[in-house]
Amino acid sequence: MTSFTGEVRIVGAGLLGTSIGLALTKQGIDVAISSKSTKSVDLAVSYGAGRAVREDDSPKLIVVCVPPQLTAQIVAEELIAFPDAIVTDVASVKAGILAELERLAAPIERYVGSHPMAGRERGGAIAGRADLFVGRPWVITPNAKSDAAGIKLVADLANALESSVVTVSPKDHDRAVALVSHVPQLVSSLLAARLVDAKNDDVALAGQGLRDTTRIAASDPDLWIQILEANSAEVLQVLESLSADLATVIGALHNLDSEKSIAQLRHALEAGNIGVEKIPGKHGTKHSTYAQIIVMIDDQPGELARLLTEVGEIGINLEELKLEHSPSAQIGLVELYVVPSAEAALIADLQKRGWRIA
Amino acid sequence: MTSFTGEVRIVGAGLLGTSIGLALTKQGIDVAISSKSTKSVDLAVSYGAGRAVREDDSPKLIVVCVPPQLTAQIVAEELIAFPDAIVTDVASVKAGILAELERLAAPIERYVGSHPMAGRERGGAIAGRADLFVGRPWVITPNAKSDAAGIKLVADLANALESSVVTVSPKDHDRAVALVSHVPQLVSSLLAARLVDAKNDDVALAGQGLRDTTRIAASDPDLWIQILEANSAEVLQVLESLSADLATVIGALHNLDSEKSIAQLRHALEAGNIGVEKIPGKHGTKHSTYAQIIVMIDDQPGELARLLTEVGEIGINLEELKLEHSPSAQIGLVELYVVPSAEAALIADLQKRGWRIA
Repeated sequence: MTSFTGEVRIVGAGLLGTSIGLALTKQGIDVAISSKSTKSVDLAVSYGAGRAVREDDSPKLIVVCVPPQLTAQIVAEELIAFPDAIVTDVASVKAGILAELERLAAPIERYVGSHPMAGRERGGAIAGRADLFVGRPWVITPNAKSDAAGIKLVADLANALESSVVTVSPKDHDRAVALVSHVPQLVSSLLAARLVDAKNDDVALAGQGLRDTTRIAASDPDLWIQILEANSAEVLQVLESLSADLATVIGALHNLDSEKSIAQLRHALEAGNIGVEKIPGKHGTKHSTYAQIIVMIDDQPGELARLLTEVGEIGINLEELKLEHSPSAQIGLVELYVVPSAEAALIADLQKRGWRIA
Repeated sequence: MTSFTGEVRIVGAGLLGTSIGLALTKQGIDVAISSKSTKSVDLAVSYGAGRAVREDDSPKLIVVCVPPQLTAQIVAEELIAFPDAIVTDVASVKAGILAELERLAAPIERYVGSHPMAGRERGGAIAGRADLFVGRPWVITPNAKSDAAGIKLVADLANALESSVVTVSPKDHDRAVALVSHVPQLVSSLLAARLVDAKNDDVALAGQGLRDTTRIAASDPDLWIQILEANSAEVLQVLESLSADLATVIGALHNLDSEKSIAQLRHALEAGNIGVEKIPGKHGTKHSTYAQIIVMIDDQPGELARLLTEVGEIGINLEELKLEHSPSAQIGLVELYVVPSAEAALIADLQKRGWRIA
C-alpha cells in the first residue's frame, strides 16, 4: 500500500503531531516524539503515537508540528541539528515561514512545507486520532530549491496517512486557504459574536443553520491570531470583497421598494447557491454536474443492496448516493447520481428490471 | 403520548407540509393534503403523508404550508372556507402576516401563527421526513384575539410532532429569527459567493469548516427574498452591528503593527467563542435522533452493495445513508445512520466482518 519507511521524528505533541505519530506507529514505522512539554510527550507515547527521543536518533524525515509563530525557528533548528534529514511542517500559512527561513539562511534544500487540511475543534494529544488525515487533502508547498527526493518523501508520508496529495506554491496555498479557511473562520466568529448580547430566549430558537454557521467560532483565538497575522494580505482581499457585498445587501434592505434592491438581494442569494455548488463533495446539495435518478424501493431489508447490485450489473458507476428513510414512509426513495450521459440508459435498464422510478 | 386527535388538513405539499403529514399519519391521524400542484400531492400521498382531499372534509385543524408571500391570503381563504376549523401556518416571519390578516378583516380568533424551527436546505415533498420536528423548537405566536382552545390545539400539534413548544408574540419572534436564522442565511450566502470567481484548485482545498459555514447558502433564493423583505427592519439591526465589527477587523488587519489591532482581533475571536457557547445543545449532532457510523470502503464496484448486504444480514435497519465520492481518494466513506440503541452492536458486528470503522 505505502512505500513509506524509515525513522520519523515529530516535534510537537499536539493534535497533529500525535495523530501523525499514531498513524505511522500503527504501520510499524519507528516514530520519535519530541516536545518542550514532557507531559505532552508522555501522553502521546502512552497513547501509542511513538517513543521518546534517544541520543542516537537518526531520522530520515522530521515533521514540525508546533504553533505557526514558532514554526520557522524550529524548522531552522531541526535542519541544522539533523543534517541528513528532510524537514516538513504542518502550519496553516506557508509563504511567511519560507521567507523567515530564507532570512535565517537555513538550508531550505531539505525543507518542504506541508499543510494537512484536517483538524478538530479539540486540540492536544488526547484529541489525536490515526485516521485524522484519511481522505483529506494534504497540501505540499515545495520551495524553488527543494530537493526532488525530499518532495517525494513528504508525498509518501501523506500517502501513508491516506491523504490526497496536492502540490502548490506557498503563495498559491496562502491565497487558497484565505478563501476556504481563514475568512470562513472570521465570518463565523463575527456571526457568533451577535449572540453575546442577545436575549437567551431569542438564542433558544437556534436551529441547525446557526449551529453549522457558527461551529468553528469555538476555535482557539491564540492560534487564529497567529494565522491571521501571517496571512493578512490574502485574507484582506477576500474580506474586502465580502464587505462590499454586505454593504450592497444592507443598502437593498433599506430600500425595498426599488426593483433594483430586490435584484441585488436575489443576486447575493444566487451567488451563494453558485458558490456552494463549487465545493467538491458538498454535503446535502445536488451536484449540477450529475443527473439525479430517484428510485422507489420497498421499505424492507435487502432492497437497497439488491438495487445496488443490479446497478453494478448494468455497469454504470454511481457518483453519489443518498437514501432518505422516513420512519413512517411506506417506501424508500433512493437518489442515484450518475454522469448525465448514463442517465437515460440507467433509467431504461432499471425500469426493465421492474424498479419504479419517481 | 399525545392527546392530538381529529382530522387535519394540510395546504401545501412541500417539505414542511409533507413532513407534518408523515408524522401525523404515522400516529393514525386522518390527514388530507391539498396543493395547487397535483404532482406534489401524488408524491406526498404515495410517500405516506396522507390522502387527497374529499368533498366532505371537515378538518379540526388546518396547517397552511405555502410560501411566505402567499400565506396571509391562503390563511384568510381557509378561515372562510372552514368556519369551524382552527388555522395555523408555518411561515418564517409572523408580524407581517398578522397585519395582513387584520387588513383583510379575517376572523383571526381562529388563527394562531406557528413557526417550526426545522428545515433542510432541500425542499419539496421528496425531502419530507416524519422526524423533521423532533426536538426542535416550535414557536407559537398567538394574536391578541386568538381563542385559548385554538392555541392549545396548535400546541398539541407541536407536541404530537415531538417539538418543544415556545410561545412568544409575533414581534418577539421576528426579532429572534432575524438573529438566529435570517442573518446567518445572508452571511452564509455572502461567504459562499466568494467562491464564485475562485479558482477550482483553490476551492478544492475546502475542509469541513467551509462546508459547514456555507451549507445553508444552498437555500432557495425565492423563499429567502420573501423572508428578508418581510423582516427587513429586524435583519438590518443585526446586520449593521456585524458590518461595524467587520470594519473593525478589516482595519486591524491593515494595521497589524499596532497592539490595539491585535487586541481587536482577539476581541472578535473571543466574542465568537462566547457567542457560540450561548447556543443551547450546541454539541448535538446533526441528526440528534440517529447515531452516525462511518465505514471506510475500498473505492471499487460492488463494495457498497456488499456492505449493505451485510448490514441487512446483521438485521439492523438503516435510517439514512450517505456516500461521498471523492475523486482523488482511494477509499470511500459511507455514513450509516441508525437508532442509537443499535450503534454498538452494528459497529462490533461490522468490525468482526472485517469492515473498517472511522
